[in-house]
Amino acid sequence: MNPNPDTERSLWRNARLATLDPTVAAPYGALDGHALVVEAGRIAAVVPESAVGAFDGAVVDLAGRWVTPGFVDCHTHLVYGGSRAAEWEMRQQGASYQDVAAAGGGIVSTVRATRQLSEQGLVDAALPRLKALVKEGVTCVEVKSGYGLTLADEIKQLRAAHRLSHLLPVEVATTLLAAHAVPPEYAGRADDYVDHVVDVILPAVAEAGLAEAVDVFCESVGFSPAQTRRVFEAAQARGLAVKGHVEQLSNLYGAALVAEFGGLSADHVEYLDDAGVAALAAAGTVAVLLPGAFYFLRETQKPPVAALRDAGVAMAVATDLNPGTSPFASIRLAMNQACVLFGLTPEEALAGVTRHAARALGRGDTHGRLAAGCVADFLVWDVDHPAELAYALGTNPLALRVFRGVAQHIEH
Amino acid sequence: MNPNPDTERSLWRNARLATLDPTVAAPYGALDGHALVVEAGRIAAVVPESAVGAFDGAVVDLAGRWVTPGFVDCHTHLVYGGSRAAEWEMRQQGASYQDVAAAGGGIVSTVRATRQLSEQGLVDAALPRLKALVKEGVTCVEVKSGYGLTLADEIKQLRAAHRLSHLLPVEVATTLLAAHAVPPEYAGRADDYVDHVVDVILPAVAEAGLAEAVDVFCESVGFSPAQTRRVFEAAQARGLAVKGHVEQLSNLYGAALVAEFGGLSADHVEYLDDAGVAALAAAGTVAVLLPGAFYFLRETQKPPVAALRDAGVAMAVATDLNPGTSPFASIRLAMNQACVLFGLTPEEALAGVTRHAARALGRGDTHGRLAAGCVADFLVWDVDHPAELAYALGTNPLALRVFRGVAQHIEH
Ligand SMILES: [Zn+2]
Ligand SMILES: [Zn+2]
Repeated sequence: MNPNPDTERSLWRNARLATLDPTVAAPYGALDGHALVVEAGRIAAVVPESAVGAFDGAVVDLAGRWVTPGFVDCHTHLVYGGSRAAEWEMRQQGASYQDVAAAGGGIVSTVRATRQLSEQGLVDAALPRLKALVKEGVTCVEVKSGYGLTLADEIKQLRAAHRLSHLLPVEVATTLLAAHAVPPEYAGRADDYVDHVVDVILPAVAEAGLAEAVDVFCESVGFSPAQTRRVFEAAQARGLAVKGHVEQLSNLYGAALVAEFGGLSADHVEYLDDAGVAALAAAGTVAVLLPGAFYFLRETQKPPVAALRDAGVAMAVATDLNPGTSPFASIRLAMNQACVLFGLTPEEALAGVTRHAARALGRGDTHGRLAAGCVADFLVWDVDHPAELAYALGTNPLALRVFRGVAQHIEH
Repeated sequence: MNPNPDTERSLWRNARLATLDPTVAAPYGALDGHALVVEAGRIAAVVPESAVGAFDGAVVDLAGRWVTPGFVDCHTHLVYGGSRAAEWEMRQQGASYQDVAAAGGGIVSTVRATRQLSEQGLVDAALPRLKALVKEGVTCVEVKSGYGLTLADEIKQLRAAHRLSHLLPVEVATTLLAAHAVPPEYAGRADDYVDHVVDVILPAVAEAGLAEAVDVFCESVGFSPAQTRRVFEAAQARGLAVKGHVEQLSNLYGAALVAEFGGLSADHVEYLDDAGVAALAAAGTVAVLLPGAFYFLRETQKPPVAALRDAGVAMAVATDLNPGTSPFASIRLAMNQACVLFGLTPEEALAGVTRHAARALGRGDTHGRLAAGCVADFLVWDVDHPAELAYALGTNPLALRVFRGVAQHIEH
């Protein structure tokens, strides 16, 4: 394997493609002995090895290796300041949430630390986390705001997220999550804060083109369905997609609300009921499973995977990387946890971080599959079977990471 | 920081030492503003920064960073052939154990694959797994046999384990686990196989100096307490230490048996009862917690951590790295799981992979602490607080890995 495809046209031959293309009937959408033709950063064609003839471009022989689409981590909060390790230590030592709050812990501590950092400081803090994801095979990552909670600080977070995409070979999709928590300045005045989000923050972020989507933490400890609806209406009026943190700790029927707005995704969904499942199915909204938070918080209520599967709801899997409830910069850990803790199959886990994750970011037509017309983001693996990707952790069998048709060096 | 200590004498100054030395009263045995004096691969002294004067050797300024002992992974099966990913996929798809067995799965598949490989083949297969551990900070690792189950194949596994210690800067402690499973040739004749272990395999391995300790899988699906006793007696007669896989799936009182022999460690211990806890405490036997297997098998019975803590039993934490029940080459994942799943504090998790793990390998006097007389295996971290080590996964904040006083390059 001599990857040197920094040309307009390249051919990646002698591969076993896990296309994740639902029109390919085999498990994983597998095509043995196939080749990818890449032109201008896109997959131009997927062709059988027997149809490969002379080629006027770079040719890479993948020696029969498995190839998957690049991983899409469709739910992260990776741009933030500070650490919550000391607070977590207190909790492990038996401290109550009240004790932790009295010691200045909780989300407010991350808000404080995030506000204190400059845009560059946020980039510096986030970079090692994003590098860890990239090294594992993530080629597209969603980043939410939500630790600024003022216009300036939300914009700073989103700008930092965009800056990261210039530092590493990865596509960044940004989401405005100003309705993540009620900031200290608005304590006891959640509706006033929602006014501020709807009237000030959201319009300014939309105007600046800093976010593709708008997210709300719809929960008893977050925002009510009525407040969530107001934010979604404002988002839709500005042409932004919506998604929601819903049904994580209780059932407020947030998923149905997301579905009502034709939202991209309903995320967490541990407490989703049958009506919620049906609503997601009818709207074509993706259910994003976040097993890292489930694990870290020692939750016991699992998302209704069998019902989602039966209803044909697409299930994505993401890290939820954040300092309070999922401090895990590993998409393969999330895949493993989705299988072990939620009962997904390895194939579902892989689809969850490729095809379905792409849909959760409004990129279903261009990302997450090995098919003509998709971006040429793909991964070449030293594994015998794609189930290995969700099974073994610690080792990294990624032989080659290709972003927009260009091979990236992977240190091991 | 300019690590260049490949000299007989070196000074590592301006450090915050997490000594894990129980004679230091602070949490983590922490000593701020201290320095390590290293001579001939050992820690010669731990001195306050204020006492550091002129020094005739290499000097490394650690710029206030945290330093911990090197990690000791005291329970692994990392030398094996094959993969069990496809079998795991079948199980995730709903196949029964009978289905899996009919398809040639289970431990017998790993035995088959291990027997098929040469010693070099086993080294090649294990190397990426050991590299992953080393990269995270493991400086001493235990490796068990137990997938050969013939004299020649057990010796081949143990030799491969020793070979690995020449390829990477890591100390390898080998354990004979011939009594891991009844091999196919002895199906239905477990006692005959135990005869073979006691009369042939164990004496030959002891003679060749290929193992420090002898382990037995004492379980209804493994070997009975009576069989375990026979193996322990044979081990003791040959001067080998004993340890056991005990109380993982049921309580056969295996821990008390290990304690009766003054064993190094009782491993798994989910079903350990109060009498077992008392036996470990009285014998000074270490309880080795293996949360990876608990997690991967979706077990619900947790080890009696509170009782072990109250009784003063040392709790080690290890990966149990193996293809069937814990395919995780990550000691930090094990630390995190020990906290999240078993309720250890981050300090207990760190002690579990240093001081207590060293004792589980009979190395309590020389490993797992930053103290005069110990080997100079230590880790320099880019973290603000040692709790970070058990808290965040994916990223690797290891700034410098020092093995026998010599700094190793860490790729990130
Ligand atoms: Zn989230
Ligand atoms: Zn084991």
